[in-house]
Amino acid sequence: MEKDFGNFQGILIVGLGLIGGSLALSLKEESFKGRIYGLDLSKDRVETGLRLKVIEEGFRSYEEVPWENVDLVIISTPVKTFDTVAKTLKKFIKEETIVSDVGSVKGDVVIRLQEILKPNLFVGVHPIAGTEKEGIENARPGLFKRARLILTPVKDNREEVRRVQKLWEDLGSLPEIMDPHLHDFVFASVSHLPHAIAFALVNSLIELSKEFNIDLFKYPGAGFKDFTRIAASSPTVWKDIFLENKENLLKTIDVFISSLNKLKDAIDREDEESIIRILSESREKRLSLEN
Amino acid sequence: MEKDFGNFQGILIVGLGLIGGSLALSLKEESFKGRIYGLDLSKDRVETGLRLKVIEEGFRSYEEVPWENVDLVIISTPVKTFDTVAKTLKKFIKEETIVSDVGSVKGDVVIRLQEILKPNLFVGVHPIAGTEKEGIENARPGLFKRARLILTPVKDNREEVRRVQKLWEDLGSLPEIMDPHLHDFVFASVSHLPHAIAFALVNSLIELSKEFNIDLFKYPGAGFKDFTRIAASSPTVWKDIFLENKENLLKTIDVFISSLNKLKDAIDREDEESIIRILSESREKRLSLEN
Repeated sequence: MEKDFGNFQGILIVGLGLIGGSLALSLKEESFKGRIYGLDLSKDRVETGLRLKVIEEGFRSYEEVPWENVDLVIISTPVKTFDTVAKTLKKFIKEETIVSDVGSVKGDVVIRLQEILKPNLFVGVHPIAGTEKEGIENARPGLFKRARLILTPVKDNREEVRRVQKLWEDLGSLPEIMDPHLHDFVFASVSHLPHAIAFALVNSLIELSKEFNIDLFKYPGAGFKDFTRIAASSPTVWKDIFLENKENLLKTIDVFISSLNKLKDAIDREDEESIIRILSESREKRLSLEN
Repeated sequence: MEKDFGNFQGILIVGLGLIGGSLALSLKEESFKGRIYGLDLSKDRVETGLRLKVIEEGFRSYEEVPWENVDLVIISTPVKTFDTVAKTLKKFIKEETIVSDVGSVKGDVVIRLQEILKPNLFVGVHPIAGTEKEGIENARPGLFKRARLILTPVKDNREEVRRVQKLWEDLGSLPEIMDPHLHDFVFASVSHLPHAIAFALVNSLIELSKEFNIDLFKYPGAGFKDFTRIAASSPTVWKDIFLENKENLLKTIDVFISSLNKLKDAIDREDEESIIRILSESREKRLSLEN
């Protein structure tokens, strides 16, 4: 199909961080014909965005934006600010403008946002992409190429949802539609739980280093580095994600601790058969993933 | 210093797996002048070793080995078999032959082995290298290049320890001497605990997938793949390691669970300050590692 990026003429990216910046760069790289505007309350980020040519036009206040040209707004600020951003947007956007986001928590958030923004349409989007680096200075085109992307529409506006989906398809990502609450359970399991574990693991090694008066971090094996790479992720971003997806996360932490205790008990009992069973199940499942 | 590989004339590698095979290949690659012998009870592994030119001479029984030519034996079988291997070796080795290993558990193991092998010297060695792949078919030269390596001698035979150390230095690895029990605590923390966590994490996602009737493994983010890569490690190898280093591992699992519970409680209380503190400590520490 021809690349039309959902036929949007003017896209405003609110929040110029790693994801917002990478989105702007990707649109440019893929020859999006419309205008790309950036809005961020921080002077620094707007200036960096302009200097690094991530955005062509940048604004530091909602008042400056040429709203008549904007038919898609993509919120890429921290999840915690979404309500405030949506309430402010509501005062400025045209009737037919679609609002979307790139946040990693959906569930109640998207339902709240749709409520705030109605009659405008809100289409929740979660690109499964990113790095542990943050900031517009780390933005890169191609971040969304061959990356999965979840759309979590709450209203049955197929045509508009299809346009947002097409935009992301034309950037090379692989969209899928999912219920917003199911989305939050899935990502609590495969992303938020592993992050919580990585943070806790590094913390426990800090603890053990103190207790035994040795710097354990002098001895990181290769596996350990992979394992804790995500523990260098942004504390603010992850604090917000953990709190926004609290119920799901607490549930998955409990299931994980119970799995770990099962393994621990088998080791304590020296029950070789159970240990092998637990390890083999895990190995088989992991090997079934692509890489 | 000149490469003399500790002046060993004949090295016998007992156990032709990933590490034993990679050691043989590395010695050849680095132009070790002596003989390299391989011994494995499995016909398959000996044949694969010969076919892939990992070893030049391979034996399937201790009786076939030209023991008069062997002045260094390196045990690279699973840790669980060490006692049996040492008892058998004792019947064959020359008086001056040094025995060493490449196992990832030291502590009581090396003390037991020295006791079995005396008056011959045993020098415990743990190369911090390896992959989640196993088997001689995955062996590769250069596996130990720039890799840390821990020597855990129990007897004060500096000259012999220095020779073993020189061998590994000449293969490009970075040796360090450590008390065998401290070694086990350190590697329980930085390697065995992360492996236990990775296995338990994959198991908990299998559990959650069943409970919620969705295949969570369809949605692995990049971080998740890194994180669980080590969950594909060999169940037999890791069952043995977990049991050999049981006390240290159980202790570190407890400390980790307590760290995770601290984070969980902070999330449950929505105590933003504590969450940020926990995440920031972890981030700073992780960023201080080289990569």
